[in-house]
Amino acid sequence: MTTTKHQPPLANRGVVIVEKEPEAVQNPLTAMVDYLRVSFKTHDVNFILEHIVHLKKAYMQEKESGFYGYIGTYQLDHIKVFYSKEGDNRGVLVEMSGQGCRQFESFLDARKKTWFDFFKDCINHGGKFSRFDLAIDDQETYFEIPMLLEKVKKGEAISRFRKSDFNGSLDIADGSNGGTTLYFGSKKSEAYLCFYEKNHEQADKYNIPLEDLGDWNRYELRLKNDRAQGAVQSLIQSQDLLDIAMQIINNYIRFVDADEDASREKWKTSGFWKVFIGDVGKLSLFMQPEDEFYEKSRRWLQNSCAPTMKMVLEADQVLGRQDLSDMVVNAELSDKQEKMLDVLLASPQDMVC
Amino acid sequence: MTTTKHQPPLANRGVVIVEKEPEAVQNPLTAMVDYLRVSFKTHDVNFILEHIVHLKKAYMQEKESGFYGYIGTYQLDHIKVFYSKEGDNRGVLVEMSGQGCRQFESFLDARKKTWFDFFKDCINHGGKFSRFDLAIDDQETYFEIPMLLEKVKKGEAISRFRKSDFNGSLDIADGSNGGTTLYFGSKKSEAYLCFYEKNHEQADKYNIPLEDLGDWNRYELRLKNDRAQGAVQSLIQSQDLLDIAMQIINNYIRFVDADEDASREKWKTSGFWKVFIGDVGKLSLFMQPEDEFYEKSRRWLQNSCAPTMKMVLEADQVLGRQDLSDMVVNAELSDKQEKMLDVLLASPQDMVC
Repeated sequence: MTTTKHQPPLANRGVVIVEKEPEAVQNPLTAMVDYLRVSFKTHDVNFILEHIVHLKKAYMQEKESGFYGYIGTYQLDHIKVFYSKEGDNRGVLVEMSGQGCRQFESFLDARKKTWFDFFKDCINHGGKFSRFDLAIDDQETYFEIPMLLEKVKKGEAISRFRKSDFNGSLDIADGSNGGTTLYFGSKKSEAYLCFYEKNHEQADKYNIPLEDLGDWNRYELRLKNDRAQGAVQSLIQSQDLLDIAMQIINNYIRFVDADEDASREKWKTSGFWKVFIGDVGKLSLFMQPEDEFYEKSRRWLQNSCAPTMKMVLEADQVLGRQDLSDMVVNAELSDKQEKMLDVLLASPQDMVC
Repeated sequence: MTTTKHQPPLANRGVVIVEKEPEAVQNPLTAMVDYLRVSFKTHDVNFILEHIVHLKKAYMQEKESGFYGYIGTYQLDHIKVFYSKEGDNRGVLVEMSGQGCRQFESFLDARKKTWFDFFKDCINHGGKFSRFDLAIDDQETYFEIPMLLEKVKKGEAISRFRKSDFNGSLDIADGSNGGTTLYFGSKKSEAYLCFYEKNHEQADKYNIPLEDLGDWNRYELRLKNDRAQGAVQSLIQSQDLLDIAMQIINNYIRFVDADEDASREKWKTSGFWKVFIGDVGKLSLFMQPEDEFYEKSRRWLQNSCAPTMKMVLEADQVLGRQDLSDMVVNAELSDKQEKMLDVLLASPQDMVC
């Protein structure tokens, strides 16, 4: 596999699309849309599907149930469109998890569009963002999270938040750091920043040696309601991440160096933080389109069923029968599986409208 | 209210019963049973209620549902006895949460018994403890938790556990500690130690000034299966907490002072730790009997309903009617509320057998 950098469809869009192997990209900082929730005061779910989400209903699974008081859902894997009953002012809600965002990027890509087009469509049709998360991956590690924690302890962090929570783990044998996370704001507040060591998290999760992962910090910015809406509006205006990244990170937290000869308000911004914020300003909004859908079902089949399939097949071979293939031929697909199949067999181009 | 120290019913039991105002007690270290789960390979739930739990069924609420595969429950607030269906080798399970333990102490007290009697009853009837938690309150604070965390970071902790997790919060304005928690072992392991700053936890929870709470650390020891059973057996043998406290805390974790001239295995135990372990050894098993049952319902009535009651009452007075009292007179109690009433009106003496 090779890395392909697409030129953005329109000049100066500040969007870089990388189809494969994002780890091979030179820029050590990459930002991605990590979660979004946008609602529309309409009950015309078809209009939203056609003109905002741009996905063909035929490829979406419909469920007569929803969350948050909505009564039904159109869903394409991790991309969900909830609708409410006539007269309910909830209207229509579009929700994409981190993975939903990755999948949506493959549809944007198929339509030669970018997130900015989607955001504009949303705002132009009265969309209200109630949640907008950005994730920044830092594979240079402009700083170490445990060092940031020490700075907070020394009063060398200036923030509009009052409290910072932290957690982590240590190797008792030598006291070495096993991954530290630092939070600013609370989960309930309108803005919430989370800085953690993605290399440690991935090493623990997948049981991979830490060395194989190299340096890797993750900075997550979670915005709600007015903050989310404001961030999306800034993004549309600036067409790059400069304003928003400055607005979010730098306005909420700044690291300084203590100076005995000056009052705390006059302490100077730390060098590492200036470099980081400078480079964040130059960030492009990154896309990592993923057109692998229903990977969960496939993984389940592979992990949980494949050994049994093999066992039955081997028995078939010894006994000269064809139990496994009969089983498969005679199986009936559920509606959900039919939809999965449609999606698997279609290309993103087929599914967009 | 005054503090009454009961002499233990039998000499050398090492049990101190404090009925009220435990905060007035001089000993800065107090240990309490904080959770327990003990099962019996029998389906004779009546026998367990009569001879182990010693509570009259008439005061217990019966539910035809249970957890962990049990089919029914006899419950007196936070004291629960689960039973399984005939032939199911789950048998009968007795479970008490921290508050359940406090409530059970009022029944032990009414019977002039101690935890040691209960533990002996359990073991003599083949009881298997699958969970046994001890909580030690330290109102002297032999050490500060953030200092322990620093020692772990410096490799100055010797433990049979590999990892230590930590979390906490900081006041960003000056970097001051807002409460730190240190864990040894994992929630899945057979032993799990948790050291935290109870004063910070309570201050946050009830919005009380930290100063009002003074120094207060909490050390929780959670034991499962063989470790739980072993601890209870040691407790019965030693009749005091010496063996068990030594066994649990000191065998799992020890803090040492780094010494450049010696290898890590030879580093000497820190002075503060020696003093602490020495005093833990002298601990008595503390009881804090609580005979307030169904306090949740009362608190709910007080917090959520009282203002509305007052409003209706004031309207009644102005309008010369008696809506509120009619409401109360005409209300019908549910079975659960009938049981609550029985329990409220009875003394612990009435309920034990």
